[in-house]
Amino acid sequence: MTTTTSTWAAELSAALGEQNVLTDPDVTASYARDQAMLAEAGTPATVVFARSTADVVAVMQIASRHGVPVVPRGAGSGLAGASNAVDGAITLVMTRMDAVLEVSPADRLAVVQPGVVNKALRDAVAGAGLFYPPDPSSYDWCTIGGNLSQNSGGLCCVKYGVTTDYVLGLEVVLADGRVLRTGRRTVKGVAGYDLARLFVGSEGTLGIITEATLALRPAPQPPVTLVATFATTAQTGQVVENVVTGGLVPSLLEVMDNTCICVVDDLLHADLDRDAHALLVAQSDAGGEAAVREIEALAELCRAAGADLVHTTDDPAEGDLLLAARRMALPALEQLGSTLIDDVAVPRSRIAAFLDGCDAISAARELTIGVVGHAGDGNMHPTICFDPTDPDQRTRAFGAFDDILELGLSLGGTVTGEHGIGSIKVDWLEREVGPVSLSVHRAIKDALDPQGLLNPGKVLRRAHVGDLAVADALVGRA
Amino acid sequence: MTTTTSTWAAELSAALGEQNVLTDPDVTASYARDQAMLAEAGTPATVVFARSTADVVAVMQIASRHGVPVVPRGAGSGLAGASNAVDGAITLVMTRMDAVLEVSPADRLAVVQPGVVNKALRDAVAGAGLFYPPDPSSYDWCTIGGNLSQNSGGLCCVKYGVTTDYVLGLEVVLADGRVLRTGRRTVKGVAGYDLARLFVGSEGTLGIITEATLALRPAPQPPVTLVATFATTAQTGQVVENVVTGGLVPSLLEVMDNTCICVVDDLLHADLDRDAHALLVAQSDAGGEAAVREIEALAELCRAAGADLVHTTDDPAEGDLLLAARRMALPALEQLGSTLIDDVAVPRSRIAAFLDGCDAISAARELTIGVVGHAGDGNMHPTICFDPTDPDQRTRAFGAFDDILELGLSLGGTVTGEHGIGSIKVDWLEREVGPVSLSVHRAIKDALDPQGLLNPGKVLRRAHVGDLAVADALVGRA
Repeated sequence: MTTTTSTWAAELSAALGEQNVLTDPDVTASYARDQAMLAEAGTPATVVFARSTADVVAVMQIASRHGVPVVPRGAGSGLAGASNAVDGAITLVMTRMDAVLEVSPADRLAVVQPGVVNKALRDAVAGAGLFYPPDPSSYDWCTIGGNLSQNSGGLCCVKYGVTTDYVLGLEVVLADGRVLRTGRRTVKGVAGYDLARLFVGSEGTLGIITEATLALRPAPQPPVTLVATFATTAQTGQVVENVVTGGLVPSLLEVMDNTCICVVDDLLHADLDRDAHALLVAQSDAGGEAAVREIEALAELCRAAGADLVHTTDDPAEGDLLLAARRMALPALEQLGSTLIDDVAVPRSRIAAFLDGCDAISAARELTIGVVGHAGDGNMHPTICFDPTDPDQRTRAFGAFDDILELGLSLGGTVTGEHGIGSIKVDWLEREVGPVSLSVHRAIKDALDPQGLLNPGKVLRRAHVGDLAVADALVGRA
Repeated sequence: MTTTTSTWAAELSAALGEQNVLTDPDVTASYARDQAMLAEAGTPATVVFARSTADVVAVMQIASRHGVPVVPRGAGSGLAGASNAVDGAITLVMTRMDAVLEVSPADRLAVVQPGVVNKALRDAVAGAGLFYPPDPSSYDWCTIGGNLSQNSGGLCCVKYGVTTDYVLGLEVVLADGRVLRTGRRTVKGVAGYDLARLFVGSEGTLGIITEATLALRPAPQPPVTLVATFATTAQTGQVVENVVTGGLVPSLLEVMDNTCICVVDDLLHADLDRDAHALLVAQSDAGGEAAVREIEALAELCRAAGADLVHTTDDPAEGDLLLAARRMALPALEQLGSTLIDDVAVPRSRIAAFLDGCDAISAARELTIGVVGHAGDGNMHPTICFDPTDPDQRTRAFGAFDDILELGLSLGGTVTGEHGIGSIKVDWLEREVGPVSLSVHRAIKDALDPQGLLNPGKVLRRAHVGDLAVADALVGRA
């Protein structure tokens, strides 16, 4: 630690208490990364724990005074490196701000701190018959703050939308330490710009979210479940397209390819159809006969498309068992080696083309790629399996990762459906959105964070006005 | 027209064709105002009609070169003065860009130009069994571009959300004439900042929307309808609160107060209960027995709250008749004189308090105030009736308008649920959002429109960097 670093580190200790400011590299290292294996991670100068909005204000005041970058961090469940440490920066851990401040059944909303775990919020509102839909796979350990920063999705999105659809209001600490309260407690409201949704999904590059007012829904009805298997991806894609054109609104519609079917069957011995090219799992929570009718309509679409097997059940416990195969796909793929989980969303009409394209990439790169995905909203997670100790496999895996993004863009899709740009897709953002959009991104970033202190190098490239050059100079590294 | 004005006017004529550039004050005057009686309107220097994105680019290039402000305008149905003319500015009329470019049933989306009338879009997608929910009262003449600029709502919002919830992607011409394409055709996507939703609701102050990709829904089921009347606002508010806490999700839930009941009855001779203090109209489009059950549950809540009358029907034609009373409330109030329509959203738990507060304001200001509102989402439209030729009534009416906004804020609400800030609530925006939020608004406005050319004086006060002072100098008025 340089002398200059120790100055601001001392200021942090004075403001937050020594026990909330860590500088031991053996300890800080465990806060350096998220779950994105592909992403680079620097070494934080300090790791600090905020317990209140006032703490975050103090951190940003000290950081802006000394020009030190700040990387906000939730539980570290991210898949894009968005919370990965930056050399010489403060990593600001939000997990201790974990209070559910209010649950209001009369206004169907909750007010929470960012460190609340997604599942803890779900549990906190369930007692009032309420439901917070966004359900990333990591829902039992990811935090709402991370969900807001990445605009997370999940399995419920096909019917219920993503995180931003549930954000009524936010409290955000700005780069200079001022506290912005934006949005509202009302269902509707159009007073001024939609700042709340600008911060949602901005991956900590525009401000630090310290509180959120979130809309809730009535608890869904018990689901009716369908499983179907198909000999071709074309049949599978046809079913998804017919669900969309046929006006069905399932509450869940997931797909697994043959690779996933086989690895899951290896793991669970579930007697799955190992010859099937794809498996669909669907649920309807429309309630009672309406759900039965909706799933029967979906079953008919599967049969018409030539499904090999169609099975339905209105027993929620059996439905959970059928879903277990889908939920086990990623853990099963991890048995094959290291995995790179990609995250592409394509128009729903292009799902079959996307699955076929992934098969071709798998063949060309000579690597196993298992595809699981939220078929109902076209958000696919091709997962590349490789041995990271083999440099050639590693190179091919990274190549396949890019091939998949290229494929997604060529089908009119996006390079990230729900995981975010983070540090791993900064170049791809530029390709997807183009120079005009990029310059608008830069203009907004500069307007809100003129020193470039907030999570530099995430979403946008870091070589920019006021960026680390200033910080480097101030901390004595220049 | 000054010599300098004629220079840029000539450039506009050369770029767009003389027939698309109007300067005759007798003609341009008819493009000077929207439907907000309270709002001031200037005199446009020219009114131009765009037929393509290229036209809009040309307008913004000429405007930015000469520092001339531009006021974008749809059909002029707005209720906040957002498209009202600014002295010496170009009013840019978008109604001729009125093509539905694509309807894709397989991806459940439509691509439209901004001049498409809301109803024309609804009709264009109905053939494919699809539905574009946002339905402002002016849906048969307002344009999608105006809806996007104001983030419009309507009667469907209680179940289906507002305009921004249907925006997947936008094409926007920026202040300097560059064309931004942002957003996507996919259901999900988190690549970069949510710029699309920043432009939605920004009332033409950040860019000119020239194309929109909009999500659609399957057509709803035929509705089951309920009407109930109550002797007290407390009973009515209790029903709305119990709908929310009881997990019901009606597709429509509207309220009218006693004033509206009586004026509608005068107009329609509909044999309404003139003694009732409030009337609720509700619909469920859950389909078949599910809708019948949902409306029966709502009827039970009404009876439990002590409703004087509860009537339900599953005949859509009778449902339309019952809704007609609600739809006639504003035209009926207009029989009493001029009207000022306010637009406050309060938390749903505060509806009874809001209705009582409006009664008190009516008494104190000695003016008739009829309240209609989207009870299901807490968005109320108290409508003040007065004689505009009587200066004292006029003063009291404007006072009552402000009293209602004050009341809304005191109940934790917002000064605009769906009509926008426009020019009439600029001061109120400042009060609602406070100085930090206002400075963030300013920073974003300056970042995207550094010359202050886009719709100056709307949403934000116009006395600002680069604003009309520059334009005045350039057009020779300084």
